[in-house]
Amino acid sequence: MNAEIISVGTELLLGSTVDTNAAFMGEALAAIGVSCTNRQTVGDNLGRLTDAIRLALSRSDIVILIGGLGPTQDDLTRDGIAAALNDPLILDEGILSELKAIFAGRGLRWVESNSRQAMRPSCGVTISNQMGTAPGLFCEKSGKIVVALPGPPREFNPMAKTVVQEYLARHTGGTIIHSKVVRVCGLGESRVEELIRDLIENKDPTVAPYAKTGEVHLRVTARGQGLDEASAKIEPMVAEIRRRLSWHVYGFDDQALEDVVVAGCKAQGYTIAVAESCTAGNLGGRIANVAGASSVFEGGVICYSNEVKTRELGISLELLDKFSAVSEPVASQMAESARTKFGTHFGISVTGVAGPGSDDRGNPEGLVFVGLASENGTRVEKLSLGKGRDGIRIRAVQWALTTLWRELYVEANSPESIGLHPPL
Amino acid sequence: MNAEIISVGTELLLGSTVDTNAAFMGEALAAIGVSCTNRQTVGDNLGRLTDAIRLALSRSDIVILIGGLGPTQDDLTRDGIAAALNDPLILDEGILSELKAIFAGRGLRWVESNSRQAMRPSCGVTISNQMGTAPGLFCEKSGKIVVALPGPPREFNPMAKTVVQEYLARHTGGTIIHSKVVRVCGLGESRVEELIRDLIENKDPTVAPYAKTGEVHLRVTARGQGLDEASAKIEPMVAEIRRRLSWHVYGFDDQALEDVVVAGCKAQGYTIAVAESCTAGNLGGRIANVAGASSVFEGGVICYSNEVKTRELGISLELLDKFSAVSEPVASQMAESARTKFGTHFGISVTGVAGPGSDDRGNPEGLVFVGLASENGTRVEKLSLGKGRDGIRIRAVQWALTTLWRELYVEANSPESIGLHPPL
Repeated sequence: MNAEIISVGTELLLGSTVDTNAAFMGEALAAIGVSCTNRQTVGDNLGRLTDAIRLALSRSDIVILIGGLGPTQDDLTRDGIAAALNDPLILDEGILSELKAIFAGRGLRWVESNSRQAMRPSCGVTISNQMGTAPGLFCEKSGKIVVALPGPPREFNPMAKTVVQEYLARHTGGTIIHSKVVRVCGLGESRVEELIRDLIENKDPTVAPYAKTGEVHLRVTARGQGLDEASAKIEPMVAEIRRRLSWHVYGFDDQALEDVVVAGCKAQGYTIAVAESCTAGNLGGRIANVAGASSVFEGGVICYSNEVKTRELGISLELLDKFSAVSEPVASQMAESARTKFGTHFGISVTGVAGPGSDDRGNPEGLVFVGLASENGTRVEKLSLGKGRDGIRIRAVQWALTTLWRELYVEANSPESIGLHPPL
Repeated sequence: MNAEIISVGTELLLGSTVDTNAAFMGEALAAIGVSCTNRQTVGDNLGRLTDAIRLALSRSDIVILIGGLGPTQDDLTRDGIAAALNDPLILDEGILSELKAIFAGRGLRWVESNSRQAMRPSCGVTISNQMGTAPGLFCEKSGKIVVALPGPPREFNPMAKTVVQEYLARHTGGTIIHSKVVRVCGLGESRVEELIRDLIENKDPTVAPYAKTGEVHLRVTARGQGLDEASAKIEPMVAEIRRRLSWHVYGFDDQALEDVVVAGCKAQGYTIAVAESCTAGNLGGRIANVAGASSVFEGGVICYSNEVKTRELGISLELLDKFSAVSEPVASQMAESARTKFGTHFGISVTGVAGPGSDDRGNPEGLVFVGLASENGTRVEKLSLGKGRDGIRIRAVQWALTTLWRELYVEANSPESIGLHPPL
């Protein structure tokens, strides 16, 4: 069973958009053992799009189109599928009324061109889109499957998962490739590799490291007849990685660092407040990524200017003058003040130089202090987070979360006992 | 003159590598007026690779292969070109001795498999690789051009520039394609299209809309003999779009909404403070994306819990009880308190339901209030920002910045006069 991806959009050919969707879909297909043997990219041109679909149908069992499902004249994927499958487009009254309800709900005026999004080939069914208006399409005809999904990644990603796991997996007949991602914080890629070099050379399961901003992911992959057989190979390898990397293993698969931090605080009844200078709210913003964070996260102070540090957090002018805002004592007091002011278990602070260049006190770009105050006292870490404003700020948030995670993990003593990890 | 890109590598199909090279090449080709009408991606398989090159030669003047030029058995691009062009591979003694010299110079042992990298189709010449060992190939046969470049981006990028600007540009006779992106906030894609439908149907320059989260981009593209001629077609079109969309046009090309907001505040000496509930710091974080934001941005309060809203921003329990935290009066008072507390020109607030689901007061997912307080009084906008926690929070930040932008633009009266936009 093989699949072919067709990415649709002139912006892809012009290079103004990098095609991350096709990679996402390739990974999802590989995970259920469907090999993707070809990929095509075409612009918003009906003739070329139809040719591409016909070519794909001639050599692939499953054809997945990404993009071109919007309401405009340029959105031709529906028309291309209808032409290639020789199947007429019909107006789906159910979708039409759903679309009108979405528009009404958002207080948007209905524009007639939106009706295009309610058209589908007569042999197709629609796939609902929780994040936008354009539904996806799933068509089966003459032993072939044609799928169409919208291009905006926010809409595409969840729909791609659903299509692969719920619609396509039932066609793959047994052998699967299964992966588990082990997520590692607080260690660089080369250090991780050093600690598990022999595991990376293993054949089945394989272990492949991927460096991400501020963390490392290890993908453990095995083949098997069904999920149980594959998992039986994967789990002992995951356990070995955890033994070697200890608290640095914070989560698995789609778990984000903020997810385990919030879960860990919830499990122990802890609350958090933040005091952010160079990250300017991004730490709080990331904690609140987690649905239900409100039971743990109180809020905080964005103290971008020194005046705010003094007035809201009581950092004295003397301290700022003597050590500068980017210093161990200021980070320490920021964390303690956040904890006291908001009455939380943890107060966590970030102050640093995001650049470009050094600050007016000569602190170099990338110098960041992260402070953590709790009933056990206050600790400050001094970090050198490289160059580049965006990267420094992302890594600073990542380190603040890493510090919280380590505290929770180590303090819990037995992380399994409070549900932070499955037992080894 | 049209071109086709073929990306070679199983890792691309598996999705473990995102194909940034193809986007880079697409942009470089567009810049010299070569339109890229198709793109293919194939794995490390000689049969499928040869088929892909044959298909490309049947419909495109220039075929550009990326990847598969290394020394291993998996590197099949040379063989594929030879097969598709029906031209034998020969060992190039010149390349061979260069390769051996490189290895000797780096103190590396010569492995015989490296000789593969010295093979080339007899009709081809090599393109030197300053950053690695595998040379590129440039072949001309029967009126078609076939180019092959190595896949590692560090080697690929400089070679791609050289090939396009020195080898291919001489075939295009000076014609270039130039684009300018007009960035639009505060209007949905279908409404933008309605307002400029006749412009979208224009042929030269073309106008193509792209929906982004919370904004719309319009790419205006023209052909011309050189940059001046292309720009002379683009600028009147951009001016017409600005006349129709007014303040909704906030910037051009790479400018982000936070860039123009910070620039606008700087130009008028205005300062900003934030009070964030559901966005939990992401608005402050986005403002601080801008290098030098510190002259404009003071800081703010992340008031995720109601206790913090009361204690830090003076929102009375009666108000919270009567209207709930997600309400017009609370958003209004949050904005005013932020302004007073931090002594800024603007106070801006966000409170809403990010979901999943309604809040415990029955406010629906996606309901968001954005408040703006200034010396001109306080305004609150009530928004329905759809479903999905991440999307709602991103769109809420986008609306807060949009509100600030509109205030700056309208208040400036003549945005050109304070440098917010070039004169029409």
